[in-house]
Amino acid sequence: MSLQPLQDRILAEVVSADKKVGSIILPETARQNPVTGKVISVGPGKISESGSRLPMDVTAGDTIIFENNVGTEVKEDDHTYVIMKQSDILAKINN
Amino acid sequence: MSLQPLQDRILAEVVSADKKVGSIILPETARQNPVTGKVISVGPGKISESGSRLPMDVTAGDTIIFENNVGTEVKEDDHTYVIMKQSDILAKINN
Amino acid sequence: MSLQPLQDRILAEVVSADKKVGSIILPETARQNPVTGKVISVGPGKISESGSRLPMDVTAGDTIIFENNVGTEVKEDDHTYVIMKQSDILAKINN
Amino acid sequence: MSLQPLQDRILAEVVSADKKVGSIILPETARQNPVTGKVISVGPGKISESGSRLPMDVTAGDTIIFENNVGTEVKEDDHTYVIMKQSDILAKINN
Amino acid sequence: MSLQPLQDRILAEVVSADKKVGSIILPETARQNPVTGKVISVGPGKISESGSRLPMDVTAGDTIIFENNVGTEVKEDDHTYVIMKQSDILAKINN
Amino acid sequence: MSLQPLQDRILAEVVSADKKVGSIILPETARQNPVTGKVISVGPGKISESGSRLPMDVTAGDTIIFENNVGTEVKEDDHTYVIMKQSDILAKINN
Amino acid sequence: MSLQPLQDRILAEVVSADKKVGSIILPETARQNPVTGKVISVGPGKISESGSRLPMDVTAGDTIIFENNVGTEVKEDDHTYVIMKQSDILAKINN
Repeated sequence: MSLQPLQDRILAEVVSADKKVGSIILPETARQNPVTGKVISVGPGKISESGSRLPMDVTAGDTIIFENNVGTEVKEDDHTYVIMKQSDILAKINN
Repeated sequence: MSLQPLQDRILAEVVSADKKVGSIILPETARQNPVTGKVISVGPGKISESGSRLPMDVTAGDTIIFENNVGTEVKEDDHTYVIMKQSDILAKINN
Repeated sequence: MSLQPLQDRILAEVVSADKKVGSIILPETARQNPVTGKVISVGPGKISESGSRLPMDVTAGDTIIFENNVGTEVKEDDHTYVIMKQSDILAKINN
Repeated sequence: MSLQPLQDRILAEVVSADKKVGSIILPETARQNPVTGKVISVGPGKISESGSRLPMDVTAGDTIIFENNVGTEVKEDDHTYVIMKQSDILAKINN
Repeated sequence: MSLQPLQDRILAEVVSADKKVGSIILPETARQNPVTGKVISVGPGKISESGSRLPMDVTAGDTIIFENNVGTEVKEDDHTYVIMKQSDILAKINN
Repeated sequence: MSLQPLQDRILAEVVSADKKVGSIILPETARQNPVTGKVISVGPGKISESGSRLPMDVTAGDTIIFENNVGTEVKEDDHTYVIMKQSDILAKINN
Repeated sequence: MSLQPLQDRILAEVVSADKKVGSIILPETARQNPVTGKVISVGPGKISESGSRLPMDVTAGDTIIFENNVGTEVKEDDHTYVIMKQSDILAKINN
């Protein structure tokens, strides 16, 4: 995938259609619908008011949890990707 | 639980289904519904505009009170967890 | 009461069900309903963008006035407490 | 009156029920209803993000104009007082 | 007029009921209704987060244009005045 | 035109009633209606929280594009002018 | 195209009416409709509160993805352009 996110955005591949990561279950409720993804590429970081880059907390390869309704979807070769802001990521899953 | 919260988020296990912690009662009203939980893991802290991490005020093991409708629920082995922002925590319960 | 508020929150016991403190009357109107309370414990202060704690203006033992609809109620031994932000406090009552 | 406002709040006694201060008339319209008051006590000032107090622009004894719907009313000995933020004050009246 | 505006507010006398200043016409439309006024007195300036006063851009005697629906009206001796924030002023009219 | 905009406002004469600037066409759609104008005068710049003026990016004589619904209209000698914030300007047209 | 965007705005030519860039597909859904474009010109950057320019992350010639409903459209010689804020760009496409 040749997309490069800008600022504090990241690109993730949606990997969990079955709402499970190992023993972790991501229940869909009226209020929320978390899904998992794999980070493909990471923006350079937001530029602060002082002109410096703010560091990013995820790197390519991380498995992450995010709400299903965030960001913008793109597709390539039957894979689905989401471009989202890093602040939309709820948590990383440690291997 | 292998989830690692990002930024100023924390992961808590919901431990009080009966709305009581010792002698403290957490009444549900039309406007509010506090519950208790145990902090499982803590994010590294939000990055300020100057690029430094802001310290977190809770640590793993703390018992906390939070509103029932905050954050995102995940489940594992019949336990329920919530990923929330630290600012959603109302108070710690001292042992 | 073993609750420890976080950041710039405080814990107060609701002490005035009769809407009077000495000669001061706290009228309930369509728009407002002030009540009085006694500060039980005080958070360590909010962390500013520069990473320092902002000092708190009340201490345990202060009698305060606040709007009845702020914060979250908890109960213990027939006493009612409210966890609120310091900015929800309208005034202190000098003895 | 023994109330001590916090932060950038002030306590004022409502003194003008007749909507006049000397030759100045405060008309009530569909959109606005200014009234006058006398400053009784003044908070210590808001704490800025850098941790310092921001100075207050009124002192006890000042006659002020403010919109009728701001703040919270309290009463004592047939006098009516309002606790409001300094930013709710429209102007001072010079003697 | 003895009113002294606070912070970044100014007091202006409404001088143009006929919607003209020299050859300039101020048309009333569905969306806007500019009027002219003369600055009578000027607040000391807003206090910034660093505790310093921000300078004001108008002085007593300036002729200004502002939207008819801003601020709060007061009257004295058949003159109408408006207390408004400096940011409500659209432009000065050079003599 | 004797109007002097304040802060980060500018005064522009509306010059393009026919929605064309050279070969550039400004289409009106349900969501947008860009028009062109000529900058007549420029405010001194907004004052930042640190008390310094922020520089302006346009100068008198620039041809600019802006949305038709921004700012406040004034008229003089059959010309129409708009007082707007610099941030309402979409682009300059290079000659 | 002779338009020069101001501040942190950019001018892009809309190049993908068929919703495909190489093997990447940009699906239209109820919630989103990403399209691609080519950056034509780039503003000088937003001025921060400290008065310095914040650097831009795209340059003329970059292929970008953005939501179809952002910014303002202009046309020239059968080409369609959009003036948008840099923050409206979702990602760059690497060649």
